[in-house]
Amino acid sequence: MDTTLRSRGDEIVIGPDRPFCVIGERINPTGRKRFAEQLRAGDLSTIEKDVTEQVAGGAMMLDVNMGVPLADEAELLTNAVRLVQDLTGLPLCIDSSVVEALEAALAVYEGKALVNSVTAEDERLDQILPLVKRHGAAVIGLPNDEDEIPEDPRRRLELARKIVTVATEKYGIPAEDILIDPLAMPVGADTTLVRKTLETIELIRADLGVNMTLGASNVSFGMPDRHTICAGFLPMAMAAGLTSAIMDARSPVVVQAAKAGDLLLGNDPWGGAWIAAYRSRT
Amino acid sequence: MDTTLRSRGDEIVIGPDRPFCVIGERINPTGRKRFAEQLRAGDLSTIEKDVTEQVAGGAMMLDVNMGVPLADEAELLTNAVRLVQDLTGLPLCIDSSVVEALEAALAVYEGKALVNSVTAEDERLDQILPLVKRHGAAVIGLPNDEDEIPEDPRRRLELARKIVTVATEKYGIPAEDILIDPLAMPVGADTTLVRKTLETIELIRADLGVNMTLGASNVSFGMPDRHTICAGFLPMAMAAGLTSAIMDARSPVVVQAAKAGDLLLGNDPWGGAWIAAYRSRT
Repeated sequence: MDTTLRSRGDEIVIGPDRPFCVIGERINPTGRKRFAEQLRAGDLSTIEKDVTEQVAGGAMMLDVNMGVPLADEAELLTNAVRLVQDLTGLPLCIDSSVVEALEAALAVYEGKALVNSVTAEDERLDQILPLVKRHGAAVIGLPNDEDEIPEDPRRRLELARKIVTVATEKYGIPAEDILIDPLAMPVGADTTLVRKTLETIELIRADLGVNMTLGASNVSFGMPDRHTICAGFLPMAMAAGLTSAIMDARSPVVVQAAKAGDLLLGNDPWGGAWIAAYRSRT
Repeated sequence: MDTTLRSRGDEIVIGPDRPFCVIGERINPTGRKRFAEQLRAGDLSTIEKDVTEQVAGGAMMLDVNMGVPLADEAELLTNAVRLVQDLTGLPLCIDSSVVEALEAALAVYEGKALVNSVTAEDERLDQILPLVKRHGAAVIGLPNDEDEIPEDPRRRLELARKIVTVATEKYGIPAEDILIDPLAMPVGADTTLVRKTLETIELIRADLGVNMTLGASNVSFGMPDRHTICAGFLPMAMAAGLTSAIMDARSPVVVQAAKAGDLLLGNDPWGGAWIAAYRSRT
């Protein structure tokens, strides 16, 4: 199943037989105190550097999150989306937990966006999916609900199935426009969690067949040498069926791990992209 | 299932719940013209450097191969095994296609060696397995026979099962002393081959449950930036069930990929080894 996202003039296709889609995570104030302060003051100037670095690093889409406490997130996100559209032709992932911010940003986005995200909670599904449908967007579904963020892969699969069912049957969103996030948790908190994420990916691939994305940097949270952990995680997750990730597109070791994954899994015909990337570096 | 290998004074245990076993590939004249010439002249001095570098890089066992054309391989291998035993306490993998060389080297090895390798050919099984049994060694089985090196994972599984059956039932070698090599082929030759290797690993894990090893560097043969390809391959193969590899233990990027795999798959409790290795580097 292929998911197509579009900017004003460009498009990217996510799918199991396509190169892995690298979604840059950097335009996000979480854990960036100075950036958060700038945004709160309405200063978006750092975004230009973030866009440039991620594009140079190999991002194929960019996530835009403006979740700054005590700020008008709808206005900030709208301004950021407008700005990023002027800076790059990459399609965007519009990332907010505030429905009004998603709505305002989708209204100014020119193309087919990826909405990040909806949970399996009934209320959230009924707030966000109509927006996704109205704007002809795609959406990331998180398999957690009112009660829990389940660890059990089979329970995650059930909640993912609920999201796909509601989106397709109640709101008429095609299954190819739904990406499920199998939930990547910090291995430093519990070293059994990555196996559960991998098992969830395999179940979703086998049972639902939809595309998937996740926040790859979560896996290494709190550990030293985070990039090497992410670089080890991505090939595993890709082999299990992951088709994209929101990740640090500025890190060569992480991006190259995804490219090695493409090569190893047969999604880089003749190794053409691998060889071209090597030549451009040397 | 756990496989224990021993040197004079040390041991290593290979198993699905153990840290991945890094077997250094370097003591091997294949593709090393000067080293081959030295060996042909009876000069083993380069081996000391090879041992030192691989031990420093994190090797947990060492493969010793003395396959030099026009040389007395039995004598060379015997001398090399004697020398390496004096240089390191790591258990050895004794690597030859010449039965007499394996026999001579096993006779001087003090401990429980890993014999590399036997194929599923009847004649080879009947030549090599008695040696393995007599010396209380473990053995690597390659799932190819007189007719073919099969690409089909199910056919590889069948040949692996033949090796395990003959070794256990005819020669009384316990299943835990058999490692199967699922056959890693160059991705540069055919980009569909790695998926077949991964599928073979999954089948062998599910159906036979024995430990596995492979020549990880084969995967990147002929491609640029080989270490990054290997570093991407190992986590995939480990997630599928690979428990050891004969690999370039001198390459930090490759060894760290295996360590990241241990952490991510829950075989590095509390991340203790990961954190300790990071601290020792910084």
